[in-house]
Amino acid sequence: MKRRSFLRGAAVTGVAGAAAAASTFPTPAIAQGIRELKMVTTWPKRFPGLGTAAEDLAVRVEAMSEGKLKIKVFAAGELVPPFESFDAVSSGTADMSHSAAYYWQGKSKAFNFFTAVPFGLTGTEHAGWIYAGGGQELWDELAAGFNLKPFLRGSTGVQMGGWFRKEINSLEDMKGLKIRMPGLGGEVLRRIGAAAVNLPGGEIFPALQSGAIDATEWVGPWNDLAFGFYKVAKNYYWPGFHEPGTSGEVLFNLDVWKSLPSDQQAMLDAVIQAQAWKEYADFNTQNANSLDVLVKKHGVQLKKFPDELMAEIGRVSGQVVKEAAAEDAMTQKVYDSFIAYRTKSIGWAKIADQAFWNARSLPFKYG
Amino acid sequence: MKRRSFLRGAAVTGVAGAAAAASTFPTPAIAQGIRELKMVTTWPKRFPGLGTAAEDLAVRVEAMSEGKLKIKVFAAGELVPPFESFDAVSSGTADMSHSAAYYWQGKSKAFNFFTAVPFGLTGTEHAGWIYAGGGQELWDELAAGFNLKPFLRGSTGVQMGGWFRKEINSLEDMKGLKIRMPGLGGEVLRRIGAAAVNLPGGEIFPALQSGAIDATEWVGPWNDLAFGFYKVAKNYYWPGFHEPGTSGEVLFNLDVWKSLPSDQQAMLDAVIQAQAWKEYADFNTQNANSLDVLVKKHGVQLKKFPDELMAEIGRVSGQVVKEAAAEDAMTQKVYDSFIAYRTKSIGWAKIADQAFWNARSLPFKYG
Repeated sequence: MKRRSFLRGAAVTGVAGAAAAASTFPTPAIAQGIRELKMVTTWPKRFPGLGTAAEDLAVRVEAMSEGKLKIKVFAAGELVPPFESFDAVSSGTADMSHSAAYYWQGKSKAFNFFTAVPFGLTGTEHAGWIYAGGGQELWDELAAGFNLKPFLRGSTGVQMGGWFRKEINSLEDMKGLKIRMPGLGGEVLRRIGAAAVNLPGGEIFPALQSGAIDATEWVGPWNDLAFGFYKVAKNYYWPGFHEPGTSGEVLFNLDVWKSLPSDQQAMLDAVIQAQAWKEYADFNTQNANSLDVLVKKHGVQLKKFPDELMAEIGRVSGQVVKEAAAEDAMTQKVYDSFIAYRTKSIGWAKIADQAFWNARSLPFKYG
Repeated sequence: MKRRSFLRGAAVTGVAGAAAAASTFPTPAIAQGIRELKMVTTWPKRFPGLGTAAEDLAVRVEAMSEGKLKIKVFAAGELVPPFESFDAVSSGTADMSHSAAYYWQGKSKAFNFFTAVPFGLTGTEHAGWIYAGGGQELWDELAAGFNLKPFLRGSTGVQMGGWFRKEINSLEDMKGLKIRMPGLGGEVLRRIGAAAVNLPGGEIFPALQSGAIDATEWVGPWNDLAFGFYKVAKNYYWPGFHEPGTSGEVLFNLDVWKSLPSDQQAMLDAVIQAQAWKEYADFNTQNANSLDVLVKKHGVQLKKFPDELMAEIGRVSGQVVKEAAAEDAMTQKVYDSFIAYRTKSIGWAKIADQAFWNARSLPFKYG
């Protein structure tokens, strides 16, 4: 499957059914010393935080290369449908993508660990695992099997537990509820007796409004405010357990990546890592700002899931994640590394970030 | 004070008493299209996490510029003494520095806010304030008054409360204790009755060993393990209140920065931001690993400061920080922005990171 030369790689650009779409963007891959990379995304055009981060990446790469390296950004559906972006990059139809690894759990359950798993790692911890805890090496190995080279993008931060039409006061109250939650989090809900369903973003609001579903998770205050869920469900539950630090990815076709000169590889490596931090900072800031608007302007009720419920969800989450890991040897290897990191990180967080945040919540006036 | 042209700036390189030191590194600033920037640091050579991050920055910049932009790293004392690095960059003796802003609180108390203040922001929150909450603009304004352009470096994470020879069970137990803690944190300790002192890194161990001091803070498990404090004080207290997210800086001489072509500015901007995230990930990971070693191998006792003590320290911290802000109009402006960010961020953290971490501490088995 591996194609060693970029020129041979370029020769197959346009296969896999995307030839027609590609031909509407007839930019040569290399012309007059200018290299243009086609980047497909899983986001709508200029989608806040995610689509905008993809555009920013392109602007920064062009600036630092004096225009010699360009990234052409394709919103979801412009070159290929969003969930075909993995195959498009793998095959060479696109050069790179801006997405999230857990969309590819159909290829291998191991991909879940490179975005988020229930009761897993926060965004900060995830970056620690990837950059300094062996995560990148495992991700490289996993992705190379699909002719891909992966990089960590930013995190959307801890997600919210979701919008509920009714109050949740016990484990019993979750039973039978129709809740929109995809992936492993949805499987956890099913095991505690809720009816987890998946719906694309655009179908959630009417379903919640009509009562076809009783609750939904989406992302966090920033994106949730934009979707207007507060208009049809006033109970906004915390904390989110299913995605405690949803981290994104940039994927390159491995042949394309290897064909890049080392200076351009260094530029891309730096700008993707820079944007990762910037994106996380944006999400935390905009989530804080939007939360303020939801509560003060729209009268949203912030409600905490009962501890009894969260402990049971935590227990079941551990089972679901462990079972997913057992599906194949590579996923097991990723799980073992992830869990070892998580265990040590919990030890540190308890006396560091968690402890400081709890100390800051003690009753005293500051300033 | 402002010198518009880089060539005029370069002409004064070597003034301010550093001519002799500079002449031992006779690299021309610009030769054959190669630009070399002199970066002074406040760290010993290859100091873990901080000195190594400075070296990594230089390696990455050289790689992405195909060697056209080089950074020559000077450890503390090699070109100028560590605490003269600010003046050296301001005057043009050095082109840039790798340091921490609170070292310059003698120039303006406002600089404290760009590193850490007692009971202030974590590393993640600090990045949010700088990148997306108005912090960078204020920092630019403050630093421009000293002919400098500032960038955020990484964070060492939440610092530890420190190594104590005796147990601390109440506010009363702190009174009269000689504790090594510099800066605003030291002032907080003085106000609750402890005798805060400052000692350079190399003098702490013997002072703690002899009983000349009763306790010391340093950084976190990674750096503290290297210093061997566990050999002379077994009580390792948490959480650190004085520096909840110690963030670093890279400073450029403003004329040098303006003289750089836009592609090189974009490279530096990206690589510094990339290293900021990498450095934070390294600290969190190595702190977690080193904590494990301290506890399991060296029998260190982790102890929590009593809530009563932390609440009082929190109250006094707020007063100390507010009073520091009142010293001049610029510091007040920085304080107002910082506090507004902090307030919103606490609202978000309580239901996001803090809540998730607390949920993860509920009694259940994971996996």
